[in-house]
Amino acid sequence: MIAEILSTGDEIRTGAVVDSNSAHISCELEAAGIEVVRHTCVGDDMDRLVSILREIGGRADVAVVTGGLGPTMDDLTAEAAAAAWGVELIVDRAALNSIEDFLRKRGRPMTDPLKKQALLPEGAQCLYNIVGTAPGFFMKIGRCFFFFLPGVPFEMRKMLSSGVLPQIERLRGGQREFSIVKTISSFGLTESETGQRIAGLEEKFPGIKPGLRIKFPEIHIRLYARGDNETEIGRRMDAAVYWVLEKMGKYAFSADGDSMEAVVGRLLCRKKASVAVAESCTGGLISHWLTNVPGSSDYFFFSGVAYSNEAKVKVLGVSPETLHRYGAVHEETAKEMAEGACRAAGADYAVSATGIAGPGGGTDDKPVGTVCFGLCAPGLLKGFRFHYSFQERWMNKKIFAMKALDLLRRELMD
Amino acid sequence: MIAEILSTGDEIRTGAVVDSNSAHISCELEAAGIEVVRHTCVGDDMDRLVSILREIGGRADVAVVTGGLGPTMDDLTAEAAAAAWGVELIVDRAALNSIEDFLRKRGRPMTDPLKKQALLPEGAQCLYNIVGTAPGFFMKIGRCFFFFLPGVPFEMRKMLSSGVLPQIERLRGGQREFSIVKTISSFGLTESETGQRIAGLEEKFPGIKPGLRIKFPEIHIRLYARGDNETEIGRRMDAAVYWVLEKMGKYAFSADGDSMEAVVGRLLCRKKASVAVAESCTGGLISHWLTNVPGSSDYFFFSGVAYSNEAKVKVLGVSPETLHRYGAVHEETAKEMAEGACRAAGADYAVSATGIAGPGGGTDDKPVGTVCFGLCAPGLLKGFRFHYSFQERWMNKKIFAMKALDLLRRELMD
Repeated sequence: MIAEILSTGDEIRTGAVVDSNSAHISCELEAAGIEVVRHTCVGDDMDRLVSILREIGGRADVAVVTGGLGPTMDDLTAEAAAAAWGVELIVDRAALNSIEDFLRKRGRPMTDPLKKQALLPEGAQCLYNIVGTAPGFFMKIGRCFFFFLPGVPFEMRKMLSSGVLPQIERLRGGQREFSIVKTISSFGLTESETGQRIAGLEEKFPGIKPGLRIKFPEIHIRLYARGDNETEIGRRMDAAVYWVLEKMGKYAFSADGDSMEAVVGRLLCRKKASVAVAESCTGGLISHWLTNVPGSSDYFFFSGVAYSNEAKVKVLGVSPETLHRYGAVHEETAKEMAEGACRAAGADYAVSATGIAGPGGGTDDKPVGTVCFGLCAPGLLKGFRFHYSFQERWMNKKIFAMKALDLLRRELMD
Repeated sequence: MIAEILSTGDEIRTGAVVDSNSAHISCELEAAGIEVVRHTCVGDDMDRLVSILREIGGRADVAVVTGGLGPTMDDLTAEAAAAAWGVELIVDRAALNSIEDFLRKRGRPMTDPLKKQALLPEGAQCLYNIVGTAPGFFMKIGRCFFFFLPGVPFEMRKMLSSGVLPQIERLRGGQREFSIVKTISSFGLTESETGQRIAGLEEKFPGIKPGLRIKFPEIHIRLYARGDNETEIGRRMDAAVYWVLEKMGKYAFSADGDSMEAVVGRLLCRKKASVAVAESCTGGLISHWLTNVPGSSDYFFFSGVAYSNEAKVKVLGVSPETLHRYGAVHEETAKEMAEGACRAAGADYAVSATGIAGPGGGTDDKPVGTVCFGLCAPGLLKGFRFHYSFQERWMNKKIFAMKALDLLRRELMD
């Protein structure tokens, strides 16, 4: 069974709105074992709508269409569907009920524009909308079953799960394919180094398709499998994931697509340990990430974002002599920052970052991209220095912050 | 001139990634006066890639394609383009130079997978990539000029503005419409409140089309104008921007689409003043935003991210009695946090945030979404309390941090 997705509307066509509906529908259909082969978007234009509906009707088995069902003039989808299949629009009793129900529960009056939404193509079947005024509908155009849904994301989602997916299940009559997607998160190798490490996967595990996704500075390795025996593809997938984890070594930090901060958080919880952070060049990003994890207040105590030397001395207890002798970007300074954050917060672990994110501030000795880290753990205080060659400030901030968390992760794993 | 956009990749096809590239490209093309009529997405599948390239080649004048140019096995775009136009892949000298340049500057070695990226369809012209290893290219397929760009958003954006748009300008041979887009950044009103405030704009300024773009928690009001007399549409646009700024009052914070943190940074520079931050619930996000601005080290001194009460007392100097009497989420605590941050950093201004971002931690008295702010300025110390009704942690962190910066902005403007 081959599916397509069509989103309609000038706001998406012109780029004013990012189309997140299509991604959601794809995820749901793929999870139900239906292969989505194409997404399309066209604007509120009758000819273009009719033409794309006919195209899809000629090549797909199922299509989900969003948008253009509302009460205004530029909502053309029902009319376009009728034209594409050569039928008339008629007042649909069930659609009218759906609108009346919705309004009655909210004490709102019926109006002509709202009533217009009950005009469906002859032969279409209404899909109730319990969270909005615009009903959806489904009908066959060409060889393809089309499901028409409103573009408002939460209405679309509700109707997809309660109306569309069960209906598609019925169309398939029980016979189905299963599909599994796994994501392995990694950090520290380039895209091509990652590709080289997992080269040969497709030959070793036939039917498993790999894909790399850059989520700078992370690289996610995604594995796709599909088949009609769920147990069998599950077993093959597990073996492939295990193989990738071996090839990636310490560069892989999650076999479930988790974020670095979630992994670090779990490691801290497992050790019943707490953490503090001392930041300069990362400007609060390390602690922002750590505190994105719900429940992080259990282990995250404090971060001192000390841009000025005065704050490094007064808040983090870095000695003025160290700053004078080595400068702000140095392993020794980083070590004292980490130690100071640990002490100030009474935490078990601390990590610090001090460097030059750019665009200004670089010297011959310490060019933009230079960064030093300090790591403080029970009985341990270490300093590190790295250099990254990105010129963009936001990239340096991200890779510095990720590297700091990765140093902490590796220490927590030992 | 009619344009289409094609995004490729299984991660988008399966919905694992929301396709924000196509929206960005649409915005840029539309702003350049080119009508985008269709977006399409297909996966990493040779047959489907070839077939969609031929389809688009038969109906559009210009197309921008993203994704599939990387060094790995599933990067098939160059091969598909060659097949669609019936030519071979050959090593492109300019593409190889682009890759070598990039690697040399970063002291990285050339590898076979990286070299593969220099294989372009015969007759294609290379588009340099100065921020990544994968060069782009452009070529004609059918009647359409195709521009192929990497899928990594920041690489794509750089190449679109520096390579693609000037090239399209050349294709049009000078004959053009002028178009101006202006963005007014606002914060604090809902989408429908914003819509109500600027209702009537189209009647008052014919030819100016407004659009709202939600960049949570900001709302950007975008104004589009198009015409063949640049001076004339410029003057009309200026008048419309001025009108919108009047209607929006203090809710508008930039007439040039600037970020809140850039606006706050400029206000601080103008006053030659410095700032410190004390954060609890925002977890470092306020300082992360402030330090995203290049040159922020001139005015940003310090942020204390104090999740634990111990850190609030020890680092920020909040009195244990205040914490005991009022709790961590209270105006009084927020005031002491701001004061403490000012004192610790020797800064002129400070803002603090303490609240409940959720999902846990809410009570009947202080439900999730409750937040208190402190504002410390020369001769002034104020506390504030607000409640937002978002249930998502990330949304609360963002709106809390934005509100804190907005309070600081309004104070700096007085």
